[in-house]
Amino acid sequence: MKLASLKDGSRDGRLVVVSRDLKSCQPVPNIAATMQDALDNWDTAAPQLKQIYALLNQDSASGAKPFDESMCHSPLPRAYQWADGSAYINHVELVRKARNAEVPASFYTDPLMYQGGSDSFVGPRDAIFALDEAWGIDLEAEVAVITGDVKMGASDEEAAKAIRLVMLVNDVSLRNLIPNELAKGFGFFNSKPASAFSPVAVTPEELGKSWEDNKLRLPLLVQINRQPFGKPNAGEDMTFNFAQLVAHAAKTRELCAGSIIGSGTVSNKQGSLHGSSIANGGVGYCCLAEVRMYETIESGKPQTGFLQFGDTVRIEMHDAAGKSIFGAIDQTVRNYGERA
Amino acid sequence: MKLASLKDGSRDGRLVVVSRDLKSCQPVPNIAATMQDALDNWDTAAPQLKQIYALLNQDSASGAKPFDESMCHSPLPRAYQWADGSAYINHVELVRKARNAEVPASFYTDPLMYQGGSDSFVGPRDAIFALDEAWGIDLEAEVAVITGDVKMGASDEEAAKAIRLVMLVNDVSLRNLIPNELAKGFGFFNSKPASAFSPVAVTPEELGKSWEDNKLRLPLLVQINRQPFGKPNAGEDMTFNFAQLVAHAAKTRELCAGSIIGSGTVSNKQGSLHGSSIANGGVGYCCLAEVRMYETIESGKPQTGFLQFGDTVRIEMHDAAGKSIFGAIDQTVRNYGERA
Repeated sequence: MKLASLKDGSRDGRLVVVSRDLKSCQPVPNIAATMQDALDNWDTAAPQLKQIYALLNQDSASGAKPFDESMCHSPLPRAYQWADGSAYINHVELVRKARNAEVPASFYTDPLMYQGGSDSFVGPRDAIFALDEAWGIDLEAEVAVITGDVKMGASDEEAAKAIRLVMLVNDVSLRNLIPNELAKGFGFFNSKPASAFSPVAVTPEELGKSWEDNKLRLPLLVQINRQPFGKPNAGEDMTFNFAQLVAHAAKTRELCAGSIIGSGTVSNKQGSLHGSSIANGGVGYCCLAEVRMYETIESGKPQTGFLQFGDTVRIEMHDAAGKSIFGAIDQTVRNYGERA
Repeated sequence: MKLASLKDGSRDGRLVVVSRDLKSCQPVPNIAATMQDALDNWDTAAPQLKQIYALLNQDSASGAKPFDESMCHSPLPRAYQWADGSAYINHVELVRKARNAEVPASFYTDPLMYQGGSDSFVGPRDAIFALDEAWGIDLEAEVAVITGDVKMGASDEEAAKAIRLVMLVNDVSLRNLIPNELAKGFGFFNSKPASAFSPVAVTPEELGKSWEDNKLRLPLLVQINRQPFGKPNAGEDMTFNFAQLVAHAAKTRELCAGSIIGSGTVSNKQGSLHGSSIANGGVGYCCLAEVRMYETIESGKPQTGFLQFGDTVRIEMHDAAGKSIFGAIDQTVRNYGERA
């Protein structure tokens, strides 16, 4: 099943069921007005939503209308929880290698996770707004899940059962604000502005064999300024799967339905740590910071700059047949001071 | 004006206007069903809620019923944002002094703030649940504000205008999980379980002269196991006021209505850094960690333990006439594994 939230001028958007081919959709106000409503009442709502989904895919839904992913907000335009792991340890190893530091052994058994801000996400086609290019604006292409209610101390198996939906994320990061902020000791805050999520969120079952061991085993396709930048497989080199990440988040507290748990920047090992851009035959990257770390390892300092006003970022994922699963995150970096 | 959310079996509770003396209340489904609804539509809802408030205080509200603060959830049972500052630098100075470290100069000009989890707060009379006493369960008595929408880069003046409501918090902390978690570099996560807020949230204007320069200038009253533990003045030694804290939170992103911004543990300097318990004539503490730091400074190691199952914490604030302003947070520490 595929779900989306259409922009309708409200804070939470309007829930629609979307056909598998992303060509049609149907509002479902009698089942759930918003995505959060559906998640709050999943056990009763999901079977009804699945009936609509089946009808849409047979082209026999009575209330079907054309689906336009550019009219979508993030599936949850605002959420009660956004916690982002750092499950691709290759990314962490690179960061450390660039500054000649070791990765602590515990990082391979105890997930890194930061608490993100969830009150005001932006839509998948909305601008990445910043007040200053000097903040060091970077993308982070990731996969995320939305959970149901999870009890404190849930096992990995219980956490896996609570995964309701899967989607893509651009976890925008302000690299030049990170060093000072992390040095203060309390983690990210100003350095993590509003994230954007893919137009469509899908149930794990919809992903078929691509959802295995609570990982999404498909390449994550990233473009910067319409040029291929990354295509790492999100199912490879993921040290902690989504069940483990959700269980980690619930270790000392209950999670409420609608909690979003992210994978962290997708990053593949690619044999050698050096020279793995798509142009050089590699799978490329999901953030500019990684390119800069490779450059630092190779030549002592980074050459590639961060995003500037006017730059574009596109994040998407195709199924085996080459069809877009989640629709595309496609954002342009813009100056918040010059917004309409 | 005073507002609360009564438990009614729903996830968000039922908004009521509460009389100044906390003796009566009135549901307002025709104005706003929930606290978040009121915050989402504050400009239209607030004037109507204030009319009900005036009637309640005159004992002439048609729908008034007795108010029982033990039936309350936290004012926002779940919120889209909970960010907690560390505005009382005395607390930070103590932490550093206990380990013979200096406080960085930037801490006096750049607020410390961590992103908290906001998806599942507990009610003011609900248990502080934990799975293990060895986690090092501690209270943190604080003040917090709830904001309206705030634009990115808002000035302190703009941030001040966005402060809608004020309340008290118990920001429960798991002290023995903190060192390992902060060492990982991404800030608090498992070490900050669900917070509880006071039964009632009040508008700044309701606080009269006690709300000055965006600080709440009254003693915060803390009891542990029914014994006085702290009574520091929340308006003293607050290095950053709430306008500055809200502006800091909005530095690189918009804040949505219903964002909760906390002060951090209230802590007064008390002349000497040593021997300032209430029993010794001081104003006491708002968390056990501070007692332990005093003990460490004085005798090399802490003597006071953290909270155990069965211990109680009470946090309240009185007006000049000795009346409770927000109702009381009153919680018992309990084993989550033995919950009903």
